[in-house]
Amino acid sequence: MKLIRFGLPGEEKPGVVTAAGMFDVSAFGEDFGERFFETNGLDRLAQWWAVNGKDCAPVPEGTRLGSPIQRPSKIICIGLNYADHARETNAQIPQEPIVFFKSTSSLVGPNDNLVIPKNSQKTDWEVELVVVIGKKASHVEEKDAMDYVAGYCLHNDYSERAFQLERGGQWVKGKSCDTFAPLGPWLVTKDEIGDINNVRLWLTVNGKMMQNGSTSDFIFNVPYVVSYLSQFMSLLPGDVISTGTPAGVGLGMNPQVFIKEGDVIELGIDGLGTSRQVAVAYK
Amino acid sequence: MKLIRFGLPGEEKPGVVTAAGMFDVSAFGEDFGERFFETNGLDRLAQWWAVNGKDCAPVPEGTRLGSPIQRPSKIICIGLNYADHARETNAQIPQEPIVFFKSTSSLVGPNDNLVIPKNSQKTDWEVELVVVIGKKASHVEEKDAMDYVAGYCLHNDYSERAFQLERGGQWVKGKSCDTFAPLGPWLVTKDEIGDINNVRLWLTVNGKMMQNGSTSDFIFNVPYVVSYLSQFMSLLPGDVISTGTPAGVGLGMNPQVFIKEGDVIELGIDGLGTSRQVAVAYK
Repeated sequence: MKLIRFGLPGEEKPGVVTAAGMFDVSAFGEDFGERFFETNGLDRLAQWWAVNGKDCAPVPEGTRLGSPIQRPSKIICIGLNYADHARETNAQIPQEPIVFFKSTSSLVGPNDNLVIPKNSQKTDWEVELVVVIGKKASHVEEKDAMDYVAGYCLHNDYSERAFQLERGGQWVKGKSCDTFAPLGPWLVTKDEIGDINNVRLWLTVNGKMMQNGSTSDFIFNVPYVVSYLSQFMSLLPGDVISTGTPAGVGLGMNPQVFIKEGDVIELGIDGLGTSRQVAVAYK
Repeated sequence: MKLIRFGLPGEEKPGVVTAAGMFDVSAFGEDFGERFFETNGLDRLAQWWAVNGKDCAPVPEGTRLGSPIQRPSKIICIGLNYADHARETNAQIPQEPIVFFKSTSSLVGPNDNLVIPKNSQKTDWEVELVVVIGKKASHVEEKDAMDYVAGYCLHNDYSERAFQLERGGQWVKGKSCDTFAPLGPWLVTKDEIGDINNVRLWLTVNGKMMQNGSTSDFIFNVPYVVSYLSQFMSLLPGDVISTGTPAGVGLGMNPQVFIKEGDVIELGIDGLGTSRQVAVAYK
């Protein structure tokens, strides 16, 4: 199953995507948030859809997509989880996952504009695979970890490198600006993806390929990361884990390249769709 | 005004504290979360209380207190914001605020047990003043910053020092365990505190004074911190900023001292009440 949320920012309605198009499932009566996931919403929605799908209206062409899930309790990110990306940023291969948070106020729809932050000189891109948690996870073993996963999304983990690395302290400062987390187009349930640790992901800027990797290059794969994080904090239903980016970010280039007004950033993951952001100046 | 939330975990009801005691304001019809703050809830509640307070039932003696606010979109923490604490941890005085996040899933009531995490050897205390945001703040100037503050709370920013400092990467790993953010007893509205940048805060372990400081020793004071953070991310109504801890944490002692099962941690800030946690083992 593929889930979407569509409509104006803050007024998104739930929808489902099939081969026939996108359909409004507002009549199901629930949004795709913590409560939906923790009460077995995916199964309930599938059963509801089997009966009622034929009566659901198509989503009009050109409708804006929002994040496919409601604002989660947390967006957890894994740093330097591809060896080639660690190398390009002159970082050591981590011995265990590097963990940081991104503010949930940075969350936007997959095709919303990227607002280059005020005073930013070094806004950068990072195509990432997101894991959405399906039920509360605490001290979960790696062999059981996939039971706690609802599905996957495409994510661009935008990063302001000066804020992240040159302003003292921790990375969160450069990860949390408004519009820095376009998520989607869809939440794809895990049954639809054969091997999540072997999917291609890519990103272009103004049509030029910048990132072109595969999750087969993960240092720490999805079940390892879910299990690992659950040793340090409870993962709640609907929580987001962004699993790191492959090589090809602007920070790693020589000379470095950062996003400027008017740039068009497009990205995708096999099976999880594509997204597109236009960079605009802060106003 | 002093606000509380009381009752079983996950079922807390809103209340108000006066000189006459604690009163149930469920009849007001709103919980103390993002929507309450963003719709001028503090003023509306005060008006409602003036008319209806006389009909509100007292909260029964011995009732558990929860966090005085609902789970916020984020808990932002400032690191090393007192010069004496920076010195005791052998850190440099920061040139600008050090920012990190704490998971909102760590939030508990002020007198709930502290669960020492599984495999923890270095669980530590940090008494902190919390600022609660009253309305959305983005690029706010320091001179206007206090307009965006709803009030203040007492917070114990529990920290697992091995998870924080010895496990690679960022601090969030050692800050986000369940029960690591006891908040309250009350949210005290800002009008009740004369000068928030000059209040005493203290913490004892088993009756022994460990921390005894004053916010007059802030490196970065409340309006500076609110303004600073709002340059990097939107602060949402109900968001929590924990402003750092003074000297006297276990990490800074020689030899170092950490929390063990059965320890009783008590803390307070003048005007913001006291809290008390008993340390229990993970089960």
